[in-house]
Amino acid sequence: VVVSAWRWIRFAEEVEPRGSLVWAQAGEALPFTPQRFFLIHGVPDGVVRGAHAHRELHEVLVAVAGEVTLELDDGCEQATVVLDDPALGLYLPPPVWRTQRRYMPGSMLLALASHHYDPDDYVRDHDEFRRLVGP
Amino acid sequence: VVVSAWRWIRFAEEVEPRGSLVWAQAGEALPFTPQRFFLIHGVPDGVVRGAHAHRELHEVLVAVAGEVTLELDDGCEQATVVLDDPALGLYLPPPVWRTQRRYMPGSMLLALASHHYDPDDYVRDHDEFRRLVGP
Repeated sequence: VVVSAWRWIRFAEEVEPRGSLVWAQAGEALPFTPQRFFLIHGVPDGVVRGAHAHRELHEVLVAVAGEVTLELDDGCEQATVVLDDPALGLYLPPPVWRTQRRYMPGSMLLALASHHYDPDDYVRDHDEFRRLVGP
Repeated sequence: VVVSAWRWIRFAEEVEPRGSLVWAQAGEALPFTPQRFFLIHGVPDGVVRGAHAHRELHEVLVAVAGEVTLELDDGCEQATVVLDDPALGLYLPPPVWRTQRRYMPGSMLLALASHHYDPDDYVRDHDEFRRLVGP
């Protein structure tokens, strides 16, 4: 049985009149040391991105601007989650099937990833994902 | 003689009708493996932040939203630089004296740092910085 795998990470945050600081460190709030980061932005309304899972890759996703809606499936639980707070990270260990369902205009998603890019780590076939997570 | 230390990093970027993806990997475009990240936002116009240098810490700074003006000094060269492109990182090896001179409204700065937070790594006294970079 695969238990619900994703979880929210509340980053450290200092909110002051001279500005807000959000931060996290590897091995602490960040469950891994990032080997890659990426930013996704300029996604038109109605465009759905990133329906896939990973075999080994861990990710932390943060909506640094706007609001991004994701659909998640870890094999036994499905959820729709909304990222809309730069101080909140969504930790996705493998294998979680994730779909970027909607970007509100002006949104930007920051992803920190545990490994370099590897096309073989992507599971893009949902039937394969079902076999991976098992009965 | 300390040579000009900072440099710009043009991240890989895929600009498509369904959205833009910006990315970089440790040991490649990213000169180090990040142990910490932070986000600075909500800085009112007129507020100046972060006048300091680091002894050992390397950083890459990215304006993920808006426009952030920095002043830099590596001991032999001074410059004012503007970060306004999520696909462009500013690499600051130690020791560079940096001042966050101005955040345009709605701006957010992403920093990736080579080490965990260490208050002893900060040089906050400009005379000490001058001694550090030498004649």
